[in-house]
Amino acid sequence: MKEADFIAALAALAGDPAARRLRDDAAVIELGGERLILTHDTLVQGVHVREDEDPADIAWKLVAVNLSDLAAKGAEPVGVLIGHMLGNGDERFVEGLRAVLSEFDLPLLGGDTVRAEGRRVWGCTAIGRATSNPVPDRRGAKAGDAVYVTGTLGRAMLGFEAPEGEHGPAYRRPVPRLAEGCALAPIVTAMMDISDGLLLDCWRLAEASGTRIELASEVIPVADPARRAECLRWGDDYELLFTAPSELPLPVEATRIGTVSDAGPALLLDGRALSNADGLGYSH
Amino acid sequence: MKEADFIAALAALAGDPAARRLRDDAAVIELGGERLILTHDTLVQGVHVREDEDPADIAWKLVAVNLSDLAAKGAEPVGVLIGHMLGNGDERFVEGLRAVLSEFDLPLLGGDTVRAEGRRVWGCTAIGRATSNPVPDRRGAKAGDAVYVTGTLGRAMLGFEAPEGEHGPAYRRPVPRLAEGCALAPIVTAMMDISDGLLLDCWRLAEASGTRIELASEVIPVADPARRAECLRWGDDYELLFTAPSELPLPVEATRIGTVSDAGPALLLDGRALSNADGLGYSH
Repeated sequence: MKEADFIAALAALAGDPAARRLRDDAAVIELGGERLILTHDTLVQGVHVREDEDPADIAWKLVAVNLSDLAAKGAEPVGVLIGHMLGNGDERFVEGLRAVLSEFDLPLLGGDTVRAEGRRVWGCTAIGRATSNPVPDRRGAKAGDAVYVTGTLGRAMLGFEAPEGEHGPAYRRPVPRLAEGCALAPIVTAMMDISDGLLLDCWRLAEASGTRIELASEVIPVADPARRAECLRWGDDYELLFTAPSELPLPVEATRIGTVSDAGPALLLDGRALSNADGLGYSH
Repeated sequence: MKEADFIAALAALAGDPAARRLRDDAAVIELGGERLILTHDTLVQGVHVREDEDPADIAWKLVAVNLSDLAAKGAEPVGVLIGHMLGNGDERFVEGLRAVLSEFDLPLLGGDTVRAEGRRVWGCTAIGRATSNPVPDRRGAKAGDAVYVTGTLGRAMLGFEAPEGEHGPAYRRPVPRLAEGCALAPIVTAMMDISDGLLLDCWRLAEASGTRIELASEVIPVADPARRAECLRWGDDYELLFTAPSELPLPVEATRIGTVSDAGPALLLDGRALSNADGLGYSH
């Protein structure tokens, strides 16, 4: 079974055949008058983190990537559950977990530990409380909206290449845009976090919204302008990508990088149509 | 780091140093006037399921073991999130997932898929709504209480040994005691599900409650009386173990298997003290 078919089958089970990429969308459920946001992400050794990654950084990243999904929903985190495969460096894992929970003032609600040989896998479920109604998703972009991104792209790439350099922490210990997500949620038409590269995630947002997105590459803030193309395709930055009516003032700092227009090729970069086959980012 | 130390460190992060076995306790959070129950369990190929297990049965079990944790809290399930490692038999996995979600009328709220070589790992988070206040846990057993168990123990063991026999489904597709859990929650003093063997889980309940539990082995319902000792130690039955004032009538069918008494050796079987070092069940 192809991955896309599997995800489509899961999405159908989830009651939403249109949710082509189930794993990228946090779930929203109504309960007791609150709207809860739930997200689950898995990290695999050698795939999402390096074989020799410091387990403290793995713990940080495991929680942070889930919080980033909550940020994209404008949710306040309530807590996390962790699935941990026991092994080398568990002391460091606990240290990193303590650090990230403390940084975001978050309780560890529970979890599970397993013992097994071989490649290690970690899971995390984060629960949050929506702060806006409706809760933003990637499907609401409208023709005429402006397209924005927070922060600077490519920092994680540079941090991956030079762990001890200026951008090392951006790769090892990403900081989810929680405050920005809450501030933006009431005014955006669509929002998602950038985990797999700006172009790929732009393409997903455009496709989910049934619109075209036109980007101007030279205005997109990148950490290394000499390597702009890579910065637009590298993942792990965990910035927020969003669309909003172009005349609206923004409550947070962000850069306008393009415009939403009527249906057509989903993504244009400097006027040239791109598709997912062009290697827009990191598919995993 | 020893597993016990790791779990203690996690439990300390979870704000409950007394929660010696974090992974066995579903979390309870208050939100919007509801009490939510959250549980996360991981299945590892070759550890919790056989190398050649039908992926449809893996999907069923993944969801069912989490629902069993909700049952022990007297919770009504709200939905599940799944972490799935792509691989052989994904069609079958989807079929099993469809079957278990349909059986328990449960939405798939979301999840994550990953691609990786090597041993496969699956994670599931289940969310439920408490139906009683307080929510039962394993710490409330009191001297004088009666100890009960639902169903018959050892069925999963026999089903594991003879997959096509009478008890095959008990191993491959366990049925969580959701209705029983909800009915029992208002009257029990302590409750948990039996995932790792009756004796081990009895010992955990006794220890968590700071009491002694005295069991009479001949009254414990087992699927094969000739192999009573094994039936009491084999896991995967997902029955409910609970304590309640001995004079109280029960709202569901269950067997009285012993009595709670004052502190002392935590667990007595036919008058003989047992400790966890005696191989009470399945530690993983």
